[in-house]
Amino acid sequence: MKMSEGVEWALHTCVNLSWTDPGEAVPAARLAEVFALPTAYLAKHLQALARAGVLISTTGPRGGFRLARDPGDITLLDVVTAIEGPEDAFRCRQILKDGPGGRPDVDYRRTCTVSQAMRRAELAWRAELAGQTIADIRRTVEQRDPAAAPATREALR
Amino acid sequence: MKMSEGVEWALHTCVNLSWTDPGEAVPAARLAEVFALPTAYLAKHLQALARAGVLISTTGPRGGFRLARDPGDITLLDVVTAIEGPEDAFRCRQILKDGPGGRPDVDYRRTCTVSQAMRRAELAWRAELAGQTIADIRRTVEQRDPAAAPATREALR
Repeated sequence: MKMSEGVEWALHTCVNLSWTDPGEAVPAARLAEVFALPTAYLAKHLQALARAGVLISTTGPRGGFRLARDPGDITLLDVVTAIEGPEDAFRCRQILKDGPGGRPDVDYRRTCTVSQAMRRAELAWRAELAGQTIADIRRTVEQRDPAAAPATREALR
Repeated sequence: MKMSEGVEWALHTCVNLSWTDPGEAVPAARLAEVFALPTAYLAKHLQALARAGVLISTTGPRGGFRLARDPGDITLLDVVTAIEGPEDAFRCRQILKDGPGGRPDVDYRRTCTVSQAMRRAELAWRAELAGQTIADIRRTVEQRDPAAAPATREALR
Protein backbone atom coordinates (compact mmCIF):
# COMPACT_ATOMS: atom_id res chain seq x y z
CA MET A 1 0.00 0.00 0.00
CA LYS A 2 1.56 3.22 -1.11
CA MET A 3 0.42 6.80 -0.91
CA SER A 4 0.77 9.04 -3.95
CA GLU A 5 3.98 11.08 -4.10
CA GLY A 6 1.58 13.95 -4.56
CA VAL A 7 0.91 13.94 -0.81
CA GLU A 8 4.51 14.88 -0.05
CA TRP A 9 4.48 17.53 -2.77
CA ALA A 10 1.16 18.94 -1.62
CA LEU A 11 2.11 19.16 2.06
CA HIS A 12 5.40 20.92 1.33
CA THR A 13 3.73 23.24 -1.16
CA CYS A 14 1.11 24.24 1.42
CA VAL A 15 3.87 25.00 3.93
CA ASN A 16 5.67 27.04 1.28
CA LEU A 17 2.51 28.98 0.42
CA SER A 18 2.04 29.75 4.12
CA TRP A 19 5.26 31.77 3.90
CA THR A 20 4.10 33.95 1.02
CA ASP A 21 2.17 37.16 1.52
CA PRO A 22 -1.52 36.47 2.21
CA GLY A 23 -3.57 36.92 -0.93
CA GLU A 24 -0.55 36.57 -3.22
CA ALA A 25 -0.97 33.78 -5.77
CA VAL A 26 2.00 31.74 -7.01
CA PRO A 27 1.97 30.05 -10.42
CA ALA A 28 2.20 26.25 -10.50
CA ALA A 29 5.46 26.45 -12.45
CA ARG A 30 7.09 28.52 -9.70
CA LEU A 31 5.84 26.16 -6.98
CA ALA A 32 7.17 23.18 -8.93
CA GLU A 33 10.53 24.81 -9.58
CA VAL A 34 11.27 25.15 -5.84
CA PHE A 35 11.57 21.36 -5.54
CA ALA A 36 12.44 20.60 -9.19
CA LEU A 37 9.09 18.82 -9.59
CA PRO A 38 7.32 18.22 -12.92
CA THR A 39 4.97 21.22 -13.29
CA ALA A 40 2.11 19.45 -15.05
CA TYR A 41 1.98 16.69 -12.45
CA LEU A 42 2.18 19.12 -9.52
CA ALA A 43 -0.51 21.27 -11.18
CA LYS A 44 -2.83 18.26 -11.18
CA HIS A 45 -2.39 17.93 -7.42
CA LEU A 46 -2.78 21.69 -6.90
CA GLN A 47 -6.10 21.52 -8.74
CA ALA A 48 -7.17 18.68 -6.43
CA LEU A 49 -6.27 20.88 -3.45
CA ALA A 50 -8.31 23.72 -4.97
CA ARG A 51 -11.30 21.43 -5.53
CA ALA A 52 -11.04 20.35 -1.88
CA GLY A 53 -11.08 23.99 -0.77
CA VAL A 54 -7.52 23.96 0.58
CA LEU A 55 -6.15 26.27 -2.12
CA ILE A 56 -7.70 28.98 -4.23
CA SER A 57 -6.83 29.00 -7.90
CA THR A 58 -6.88 32.31 -9.74
CA THR A 59 -6.26 33.06 -13.40
CA GLY A 60 -4.81 36.04 -15.20
CA PRO A 61 -1.34 37.62 -15.35
CA ARG A 62 -0.89 37.49 -11.55
CA GLY A 63 -2.79 34.24 -11.19
CA GLY A 64 -1.78 31.02 -9.53
CA PHE A 65 -2.45 29.28 -6.24
CA ARG A 66 -2.76 30.52 -2.69
CA LEU A 67 -3.99 29.05 0.58
CA ALA A 68 -7.78 29.25 0.87
CA ARG A 69 -7.63 29.91 4.60
CA ASP A 70 -5.32 30.44 7.55
CA PRO A 71 -2.66 27.66 7.72
CA GLY A 72 -3.81 27.01 11.29
CA ASP A 73 -7.15 25.95 9.80
CA ILE A 74 -5.66 23.51 7.26
CA THR A 75 -4.95 20.11 8.77
CA LEU A 76 -2.68 17.48 7.31
CA LEU A 77 -5.80 15.35 6.92
CA ASP A 78 -7.35 18.04 4.70
CA VAL A 79 -4.33 17.86 2.40
CA VAL A 80 -3.99 14.07 2.40
CA THR A 81 -7.71 13.62 1.74
CA ALA A 82 -7.60 16.13 -1.12
CA ILE A 83 -4.93 14.04 -2.85
CA GLU A 84 -5.86 10.49 -1.82
CA GLY A 85 -9.64 10.84 -1.64
CA PRO A 86 -11.88 10.29 1.37
CA GLU A 87 -12.14 6.49 1.23
CA ASP A 88 -10.58 4.23 3.85
CA ALA A 89 -7.54 2.23 2.75
CA PHE A 90 -9.29 -0.92 3.97
CA ARG A 91 -12.45 -1.42 1.92
CA CYS A 92 -14.62 -4.16 3.34
CA ARG A 93 -15.96 -6.34 0.51
CA GLN A 94 -18.31 -8.11 2.90
CA ILE A 95 -16.99 -11.60 2.32
CA LEU A 96 -19.05 -12.69 5.33
CA LYS A 97 -22.10 -12.49 3.06
CA ASP A 98 -20.73 -15.62 1.35
CA GLY A 99 -19.60 -17.26 4.61
CA PRO A 100 -21.39 -19.76 6.87
CA GLY A 101 -24.67 -18.19 8.02
CA GLY A 102 -23.99 -15.11 5.88
CA ARG A 103 -27.06 -12.92 5.40
CA PRO A 104 -27.69 -10.92 2.23
CA ASP A 105 -29.67 -8.26 4.14
CA VAL A 106 -26.85 -7.37 6.57
CA ASP A 107 -24.41 -4.55 5.83
CA TYR A 108 -21.23 -6.19 7.08
CA ARG A 109 -19.25 -3.00 6.48
CA ARG A 110 -20.99 -1.82 9.66
CA THR A 111 -21.38 -5.01 11.65
CA CYS A 112 -18.30 -7.14 10.87
CA THR A 113 -15.82 -7.23 13.75
CA VAL A 114 -12.84 -7.28 11.36
CA SER A 115 -14.20 -4.26 9.50
CA GLN A 116 -14.72 -2.40 12.75
CA ALA A 117 -11.19 -3.18 13.95
CA MET A 118 -9.70 -1.95 10.67
CA ARG A 119 -11.91 1.13 10.85
CA ARG A 120 -10.62 1.94 14.35
CA ALA A 121 -7.03 1.88 13.06
CA GLU A 122 -8.00 4.15 10.17
CA LEU A 123 -9.66 6.56 12.61
CA ALA A 124 -6.51 6.63 14.76
CA TRP A 125 -4.51 7.56 11.64
CA ARG A 126 -7.01 10.23 10.65
CA ALA A 127 -7.17 11.66 14.17
CA GLU A 128 -3.39 12.05 14.21
CA LEU A 129 -3.43 13.83 10.82
CA ALA A 130 -6.41 15.97 11.81
CA GLY A 131 -4.59 17.06 14.97
CA GLN A 132 -1.76 18.73 13.06
CA THR A 133 -2.05 21.81 10.88
CA ILE A 134 0.12 23.42 8.23
CA ALA A 135 0.79 26.15 10.81
CA ASP A 136 2.13 23.52 13.24
CA ILE A 137 4.51 22.19 10.59
CA ARG A 138 5.57 25.71 9.65
CA ARG A 139 6.27 26.61 13.28
CA THR A 140 8.46 23.54 13.81
CA VAL A 141 10.37 24.15 10.57
CA GLU A 142 10.98 27.79 11.54
CA GLN A 143 12.30 26.77 14.95
CA ARG A 144 14.65 24.19 13.48
CA ASP A 145 15.80 26.12 10.44
CA PRO A 146 15.32 29.90 10.63
CA ALA A 147 16.68 30.22 7.07
CA ALA A 148 13.88 28.12 5.55
CA ALA A 149 11.16 30.79 5.46
CA PRO A 150 13.20 33.63 3.89
CA ALA A 151 14.86 31.24 1.42
CA THR A 152 11.49 29.87 0.33
CA ARG A 153 9.94 33.33 0.08
CA GLU A 154 12.85 34.37 -2.13
CA ALA A 155 12.52 31.25 -4.31
CA LEU A 156 8.79 31.84 -4.82
CA ARG A 157 9.14 35.50 -5.74
CA MET B 1 -4.79 4.59 -1.50
CA LYS B 2 -6.26 1.14 -1.27
CA MET B 3 -5.30 -1.91 0.69
CA SER B 4 -5.26 -5.29 -1.02
CA GLU B 5 -8.48 -7.29 -0.73
CA GLY B 6 -6.15 -9.98 0.55
CA VAL B 7 -6.07 -8.25 3.94
CA GLU B 8 -9.78 -8.89 4.48
CA TRP B 9 -9.42 -12.49 3.28
CA ALA B 10 -6.37 -13.08 5.46
CA LEU B 11 -7.91 -11.67 8.62
CA HIS B 12 -11.10 -13.69 8.26
CA THR B 13 -9.14 -16.82 7.38
CA CYS B 14 -7.00 -16.44 10.51
CA VAL B 15 -10.15 -16.10 12.64
CA ASN B 16 -11.59 -19.19 10.94
CA LEU B 17 -8.39 -21.17 11.56
CA SER B 18 -8.54 -20.17 15.23
CA TRP B 19 -11.76 -22.20 15.44
CA THR B 20 -10.25 -25.40 14.07
CA ASP B 21 -8.53 -27.96 16.27
CA PRO B 22 -4.98 -26.89 17.14
CA GLY B 23 -2.48 -28.65 14.90
CA GLU B 24 -5.09 -29.45 12.26
CA ALA B 25 -4.17 -28.11 8.83
CA VAL B 26 -6.83 -26.97 6.36
CA PRO B 27 -6.21 -27.00 2.60
CA ALA B 28 -6.28 -23.64 0.77
CA ALA B 29 -9.20 -24.83 -1.37
CA ARG B 30 -11.30 -25.50 1.73
CA LEU B 31 -10.41 -22.12 3.26
CA ALA B 32 -11.31 -20.39 -0.01
CA GLU B 33 -14.59 -22.26 -0.37
CA VAL B 34 -15.91 -20.91 2.95
CA PHE B 35 -16.12 -17.41 1.47
CA ALA B 36 -16.39 -18.41 -2.21
CA LEU B 37 -12.96 -16.87 -2.86
CA PRO B 38 -10.66 -17.77 -5.78
CA THR B 39 -8.40 -20.51 -4.39
CA ALA B 40 -5.23 -19.61 -6.29
CA TYR B 41 -5.40 -15.99 -5.22
CA LEU B 42 -6.16 -16.85 -1.59
CA ALA B 43 -3.31 -19.41 -1.65
CA LYS B 44 -0.92 -16.63 -2.65
CA HIS B 45 -1.92 -14.66 0.45
CA LEU B 46 -1.76 -17.75 2.67
CA GLN B 47 1.81 -18.30 1.48
CA ALA B 48 2.60 -14.70 2.41
CA LEU B 49 1.18 -15.35 5.88
CA ALA B 50 3.32 -18.48 6.14
CA ARG B 51 6.46 -16.57 5.07
CA ALA B 52 5.66 -14.00 7.76
CA GLY B 53 5.38 -16.73 10.38
CA VAL B 54 1.65 -16.22 11.00
CA LEU B 55 0.64 -19.55 9.45
CA ILE B 56 2.41 -22.87 9.07
CA SER B 57 2.12 -24.58 5.71
CA THR B 58 2.34 -28.35 5.59
CA THR B 59 2.28 -30.69 2.62
CA GLY B 60 1.03 -34.23 2.17
CA PRO B 61 -2.43 -35.84 2.20
CA ARG B 62 -3.48 -34.03 5.41
CA GLY B 63 -1.54 -30.89 4.54
CA GLY B 64 -2.68 -27.30 4.39
CA PHE B 65 -2.48 -24.24 6.60
CA ARG B 66 -2.78 -23.75 10.33
CA LEU B 67 -2.01 -20.92 12.74
CA ALA B 68 1.67 -20.82 13.68
CA ARG B 69 0.92 -19.72 17.23
CA ASP B 70 -1.84 -18.94 19.69
CA PRO B 71 -4.40 -16.52 18.19
CA GLY B 72 -3.79 -14.28 21.21
CA ASP B 73 -0.23 -13.86 19.93
CA ILE B 74 -1.20 -12.90 16.39
CA THR B 75 -2.01 -9.21 16.07
CA LEU B 76 -3.94 -7.60 13.24
CA LEU B 77 -0.71 -5.76 12.41
CA ASP B 78 1.07 -9.12 11.92
CA VAL B 79 -1.55 -10.10 9.35
CA VAL B 80 -1.75 -6.73 7.60
CA THR B 81 2.05 -6.49 7.38
CA ALA B 82 2.29 -10.02 5.99
CA ILE B 83 0.00 -9.04 3.11
CA GLU B 84 0.89 -5.38 2.55
CA GLY B 85 4.57 -5.47 3.47
CA PRO B 86 6.35 -3.53 6.20
CA GLU B 87 6.77 -0.20 4.41
CA ASP B 88 4.90 2.93 5.45
CA ALA B 89 2.15 4.10 3.10
CA PHE B 90 3.80 7.52 3.03
CA ARG B 91 7.27 7.17 1.50
CA CYS B 92 9.29 10.33 1.83
CA ARG B 93 11.14 11.07 -1.42
CA GLN B 94 13.14 13.80 0.26
CA ILE B 95 12.07 16.60 -2.04
CA LEU B 96 13.67 19.01 0.45
CA LYS B 97 17.03 17.92 -0.99
CA ASP B 98 16.05 19.90 -4.11
CA GLY B 99 14.49 22.78 -2.15
CA PRO B 100 16.00 26.10 -1.00
CA GLY B 101 18.99 25.33 1.22
CA GLY B 102 18.54 21.58 0.63
CA ARG B 103 21.57 19.53 1.67
CA PRO B 104 22.62 16.36 -0.13
CA ASP B 105 24.16 14.92 3.06
CA VAL B 106 20.97 15.12 5.17
CA ASP B 107 18.56 12.17 5.40
CA TYR B 108 15.29 14.10 5.25
CA ARG B 109 13.32 10.90 5.85
CA ARG B 110 14.49 11.35 9.45
CA THR B 111 14.69 15.11 9.82
CA CYS B 112 11.85 16.54 7.70
CA THR B 113 8.95 17.83 9.79
CA VAL B 114 6.40 16.68 7.20
CA SER B 115 7.91 13.18 7.14
CA GLN B 116 7.84 13.02 10.92
CA ALA B 117 4.21 14.11 11.07
CA MET B 118 3.20 11.49 8.51
CA ARG B 119 5.22 8.91 10.42
CA ARG B 120 3.37 9.73 13.65
CA ALA B 121 0.04 9.05 11.92
CA GLU B 122 1.37 5.76 10.56
CA LEU B 123 2.53 4.77 14.05
CA ALA B 124 -0.92 5.57 15.47
CA TRP B 125 -2.42 3.26 12.84
CA ARG B 126 0.09 0.53 13.57
CA ALA B 127 -0.37 0.84 17.33
CA GLU B 128 -4.10 0.36 16.96
CA LEU B 129 -3.60 -2.74 14.79
CA ALA B 130 -0.90 -4.09 17.10
CA GLY B 131 -3.24 -3.72 20.07
CA GLN B 132 -5.79 -6.17 18.70
CA THR B 133 -5.28 -9.88 18.22
CA ILE B 134 -7.06 -12.60 16.28
CA ALA B 135 -8.23 -13.90 19.68
CA ASP B 136 -9.84 -10.51 20.43
CA ILE B 137 -11.71 -10.61 17.13
CA ARG B 138 -12.76 -14.20 17.72
CA ARG B 139 -14.05 -13.39 21.21
CA THR B 140 -16.18 -10.50 19.95
CA VAL B 141 -17.57 -12.58 17.08
CA GLU B 142 -18.46 -15.41 19.48
CA GLN B 143 -20.26 -13.01 21.80
CA ARG B 144 -22.26 -11.47 18.97
CA ASP B 145 -22.98 -14.60 17.00
CA PRO B 146 -22.68 -17.87 18.93
CA ALA B 147 -23.47 -19.83 15.75
CA ALA B 148 -20.40 -18.53 13.91
CA ALA B 149 -17.80 -20.85 15.45
CA PRO B 150 -19.67 -24.17 15.02
CA ALA B 151 -20.84 -23.22 11.52
CA THR B 152 -17.29 -22.36 10.47
CA ARG B 153 -15.84 -25.50 12.05
CA GLU B 154 -18.40 -27.53 10.12
CA ALA B 155 -17.62 -25.73 6.85
CA LEU B 156 -13.89 -26.33 7.26
CA ARG B 157 -14.21 -30.04 8.05
